[in-house]
Amino acid sequence: MNSTKEVYIFSPGTVSNVSCGFDVLGFCLETVGDKMVVRTSPQKGIRITKIEGFDLPFETDKNVAGVSAQALIDDLKPDVGFEIEIYKHIKPGSGIGSSAASAAGSVFAINELMGKPYDKTQLTQFAMKGEAVASQSEHADNLAPAIFGGFTLVKSLSPLEILKLPVPDELYATIIHPQIEIKTAEARAILPKMVSMQQGILQWSNVGSLVHALHTEDYELLKRSLHDAIVEPHRSQLIPHFNEIKKATLECGALGTGISGSGPSIFTLSKGESTAKAVEQAMRKVYENKSIDFETYVSKVNPEGIKVINS
Amino acid sequence: MNSTKEVYIFSPGTVSNVSCGFDVLGFCLETVGDKMVVRTSPQKGIRITKIEGFDLPFETDKNVAGVSAQALIDDLKPDVGFEIEIYKHIKPGSGIGSSAASAAGSVFAINELMGKPYDKTQLTQFAMKGEAVASQSEHADNLAPAIFGGFTLVKSLSPLEILKLPVPDELYATIIHPQIEIKTAEARAILPKMVSMQQGILQWSNVGSLVHALHTEDYELLKRSLHDAIVEPHRSQLIPHFNEIKKATLECGALGTGISGSGPSIFTLSKGESTAKAVEQAMRKVYENKSIDFETYVSKVNPEGIKVINS
Repeated sequence: MNSTKEVYIFSPGTVSNVSCGFDVLGFCLETVGDKMVVRTSPQKGIRITKIEGFDLPFETDKNVAGVSAQALIDDLKPDVGFEIEIYKHIKPGSGIGSSAASAAGSVFAINELMGKPYDKTQLTQFAMKGEAVASQSEHADNLAPAIFGGFTLVKSLSPLEILKLPVPDELYATIIHPQIEIKTAEARAILPKMVSMQQGILQWSNVGSLVHALHTEDYELLKRSLHDAIVEPHRSQLIPHFNEIKKATLECGALGTGISGSGPSIFTLSKGESTAKAVEQAMRKVYENKSIDFETYVSKVNPEGIKVINS
Repeated sequence: MNSTKEVYIFSPGTVSNVSCGFDVLGFCLETVGDKMVVRTSPQKGIRITKIEGFDLPFETDKNVAGVSAQALIDDLKPDVGFEIEIYKHIKPGSGIGSSAASAAGSVFAINELMGKPYDKTQLTQFAMKGEAVASQSEHADNLAPAIFGGFTLVKSLSPLEILKLPVPDELYATIIHPQIEIKTAEARAILPKMVSMQQGILQWSNVGSLVHALHTEDYELLKRSLHDAIVEPHRSQLIPHFNEIKKATLECGALGTGISGSGPSIFTLSKGESTAKAVEQAMRKVYENKSIDFETYVSKVNPEGIKVINS
């Protein structure tokens, strides 16, 4: 390969856990995500040549996009190297899959440049190596929706198996990101190690009915399934005014409101864009005058996932 | 209403729990079930006039079919009474929904005779009163598949909400019923009160993927979902040669093998009747020469549920 090739991609933000689906469910956003340019280079290896938006390490082995890309080329052993430019829009630590977007972006782009030798599951596997840099453990609940698009269920991590679930057409998400930091260690430590059988039964009945609701486009059933009696009562304590936000959004007609990933972002799912926008206003109203900076997003659930914008 | 009307019904056996779906999933059988005749009578109230097959109480308030029927007429207050004949084929205590078949049968038949004033969820609600006589608590995981047919998910008990899931065409069950008694109290006492978060995650990921597998007719995914790390390791200790049966059936190409309800019956799901019959032979081979009486059944998963045979 003599001439330089490059690809310009959009790598979306994602919401994982989705109330009842702790550690297994996730969905993909459309209006919030990073952009990346990846180009081939005669010099082998991975180099991160530009980072805009947030202050992140340029060292390949410390940057999630670098680590995932390195995992891919360790396997593929291509004759060329790659330069990566990262245009970061998802704030690290926001809870909407910032590290997953970076980790997925580099491997997706390299796969495109190399003629797609890998499938989406394999790309997720490489990206998990990058995710592990950010979260100290390999997981796929944000990577799966970023790479597969839509709604996903991580059936198993070893061997990695991801199910792409159908997404009803009018499903919209609203996100509020309070600009506070939740330490990953704290978000983990606060989780119960054991759950009661009764809570467990409730949770797997809700996961089962949520999957059924997605298949049957039953928004009301989706609403009745978006509950989490296991993780939310604990982690919501770390998020200011969580209960107030939840109450206000459900009063707007939202289908469900919960913690995005391990927080601090809060997500709401709604049927239709107008409800999702009303939810956004209700969220903003709760946080205004509370001396917490925040950002909000409204997004259709993105059926496509990560994609080439211009190659 | 002057003239006597009667209805003759088939009330099927059912398998509840279905490995990963403890307390929420169930499916309906076709080749094993009770028959009942219910007729109107000028004398108000419920009378059980015949019981064949097994020795069960004739007193309305002690017989599950009587109690559920009474719950229905307490609500409907009809001008007539009902006589119930029970032709019992499902052995009480077998773990394939014997009491559910009785409890569902009487209310289904009365509903037919009265012009169907109630929907299936309401019938399940009445039948739960009968189930409670047999199991000391109201539950619906055998009633739901008996009344709705096919594969069901009990989304919630209060308010009662039952989801009917799709059933792939070639799904067959094989059942072996070792003729031993497991005391309900013992089957309950052996259950853990708490489960680890990791076990919980595994369970709700399996329930989600099982529901997805039913919708997509993905037998291989069904196979990968039919696991139970929570209840089976405990209750299987009460069932002789459970692990041997499980190993032998999976070697025949079965999709999954687990405990039917709280046992002692063991169920297997297979793709296609020929595999289901090979599984039956494998099951019989394990129990032969082991001085335990047993019965086996092969049945298509019954999409229809309880039905009128001749009215």
